[in-house]
Amino acid sequence: MVIDGLGGLPHPETGKTELESAQTPNLDYLAKKGICGLIEPISPGLTPGSGPAHLALFGYDPFRFTIGRGTLEALGIDFPLQKGDVAVRGNFCTMDNEGVILDRRAGRVSTEKCIELCQQLGEIKIDKVRLWVSPVKEHRFVVVFRGDNIYAELSDSDPQQVGQRPKQVVALSPQAKQTATLANEFIAKAKAILANSYPANMVLLRGFSQYPHFPSMSEVYGLKPAAIATYPMYRGLSKLVGMEVVDSGDSVEEEFAALAQHYTTYDFFFLHVKQADTAGEDGDFWGKVRAIEEVDAALPRLMDLQPEVIMVTGDHSTPALLRAHSWHTVPFLLCSRFCRPDDVLEFSERACTKGSLGRFPALEAMPLALANALKLTKFGA
Amino acid sequence: MVIDGLGGLPHPETGKTELESAQTPNLDYLAKKGICGLIEPISPGLTPGSGPAHLALFGYDPFRFTIGRGTLEALGIDFPLQKGDVAVRGNFCTMDNEGVILDRRAGRVSTEKCIELCQQLGEIKIDKVRLWVSPVKEHRFVVVFRGDNIYAELSDSDPQQVGQRPKQVVALSPQAKQTATLANEFIAKAKAILANSYPANMVLLRGFSQYPHFPSMSEVYGLKPAAIATYPMYRGLSKLVGMEVVDSGDSVEEEFAALAQHYTTYDFFFLHVKQADTAGEDGDFWGKVRAIEEVDAALPRLMDLQPEVIMVTGDHSTPALLRAHSWHTVPFLLCSRFCRPDDVLEFSERACTKGSLGRFPALEAMPLALANALKLTKFGA
Repeated sequence: MVIDGLGGLPHPETGKTELESAQTPNLDYLAKKGICGLIEPISPGLTPGSGPAHLALFGYDPFRFTIGRGTLEALGIDFPLQKGDVAVRGNFCTMDNEGVILDRRAGRVSTEKCIELCQQLGEIKIDKVRLWVSPVKEHRFVVVFRGDNIYAELSDSDPQQVGQRPKQVVALSPQAKQTATLANEFIAKAKAILANSYPANMVLLRGFSQYPHFPSMSEVYGLKPAAIATYPMYRGLSKLVGMEVVDSGDSVEEEFAALAQHYTTYDFFFLHVKQADTAGEDGDFWGKVRAIEEVDAALPRLMDLQPEVIMVTGDHSTPALLRAHSWHTVPFLLCSRFCRPDDVLEFSERACTKGSLGRFPALEAMPLALANALKLTKFGA
Repeated sequence: MVIDGLGGLPHPETGKTELESAQTPNLDYLAKKGICGLIEPISPGLTPGSGPAHLALFGYDPFRFTIGRGTLEALGIDFPLQKGDVAVRGNFCTMDNEGVILDRRAGRVSTEKCIELCQQLGEIKIDKVRLWVSPVKEHRFVVVFRGDNIYAELSDSDPQQVGQRPKQVVALSPQAKQTATLANEFIAKAKAILANSYPANMVLLRGFSQYPHFPSMSEVYGLKPAAIATYPMYRGLSKLVGMEVVDSGDSVEEEFAALAQHYTTYDFFFLHVKQADTAGEDGDFWGKVRAIEEVDAALPRLMDLQPEVIMVTGDHSTPALLRAHSWHTVPFLLCSRFCRPDDVLEFSERACTKGSLGRFPALEAMPLALANALKLTKFGA
């Protein structure tokens, strides 16, 4: 179970973090019965994005298995990406008569307007590829190209500053030349369509990336894994490592119900809870406390299922104090029949510091879980 | 701040290390406010020299960024090495009439004698290179060659035992052939000059090395770094990673004054305090205790400057009991507005064992410092 953004920083008045401020009798029980530590999501000092942070927890080295911006943006809107698809992040922007960019976000057009403009751009036809233009939010959208022999080694058209003209997309590898032509053709046609849509009269593209082929968790671990997540991006990340995504509803309550419902069909569950991170990003210390307490209150439903191994941690810290992801380590607990309990009596940053796992890379979590499920064979004779 | 040789071993009578025996209210305060751990300077069990130990603290992998003996010796006497210079460590030695070495240190000639002999050898002229012969201490000196197309892949002339003859310097790579000839020419001319200087009637050279080009801390971290150090070798190491060396005086007192004076000109300071290591090497347990207490007493001058991040550690341990550098881990503290304090209440080997950083490679210190100064961008989306 990943409580997104779990790690925090002390409240200036109480000296206690969000997790330390929360009433968490069930998490404390698991910490007491199990083993604890602090995970280093990516590398000491590095603040992780959600993509690499989750991949590390799934046991995929985030320096080796990388995901581009376009792909992650497409996953974030639940776009059903297929292997080989090239996705790119788009902005509607405002250009003057000379073609110079006045506003990279077209005055943050409304999401409704974005949907309407994306429908118009979706009419664009380009030889040999299928393409989709999908709205994200305000000025942001995603373009997905699907076809044979398309590649993502392409420069951005977005110069990332106003006062300049949009750039030509250039192939960064010989094999990507044809795709650069397609991308520029798309941009030219989009420009023509948007000519009278001031302030959103042009598009800027950045972060071309190809949907990667990662070995599945079934291939790597021999598991039949399922994902339970209310947010599209986490469902997309799960699919990337071969998890099946089950219908998870919209709330923590519904997520735990989904777990119970599908419990006998799979032998591994990734359960993602988003609310703690959202509160952290909003700088809402007590909202994050409540989000953690809500998870704790739901936990008996999970414990009733008597899983062989329970792991609880976060993908990264999101201290309300910083209103953002941070580099801080994240509390971790693992509970199984065969773990060797340490002296940790509660689940908190401070208590986990003294756990028997110490400070360790997130990448090591899956091997530990598999070992505790007696699913790993001996190494060597 | 590096307190050289900080880590120690317990006094046989009190069971407390040097740091544990010292009164250090200011270091304890920082430890209480900050996060603690124990650094592993290079690799478990490895006793580091000062060069690699400092490079690791600066964030340069000491197995990748290596410094030869000749270069380190030259840095140790403040010789203004330039990129490409080849430096080599020299000994005056005693040879018999047959050319066999009787004493590799020429009876440890006095430093005065060494200076005089180096002046004589400094008159040697060799085609196409400039050369310097600089005294170090007693029988030890440094030769620096500067010129085009000179290389350090050369064998030693020092056979490292008595009863043998000095060896010819041999090129260990094709490109170094010409430099081998120059080195042998230097040795022949030195032998002629020293013929009547018994017992110092010959030279032995070992550790040819070329002044390396390391990426600067400005390039790597985007910092404007300054070094404050009273000993030449540490100033030289600092220059090697692109720090500017400010006038640091001769005492701890003057070093902290230099820090205050230059505080607004730079955004990173390496402050090196040598005395604890010297006392450790002398086996002077209580001298090392006093050296640590002197640093602690000066610390408020640093704290008054309210740096965003303070790190205090040592480059390695120098237990008075061993009278030498050792492999033991070294207490480490980091204090910033955004660190997540652990339960450590004082700065000592024993207390740092329980810190939230655990035992960790010195190489991770700089990324942690940069993160706490909010100077690192997010990894991945």
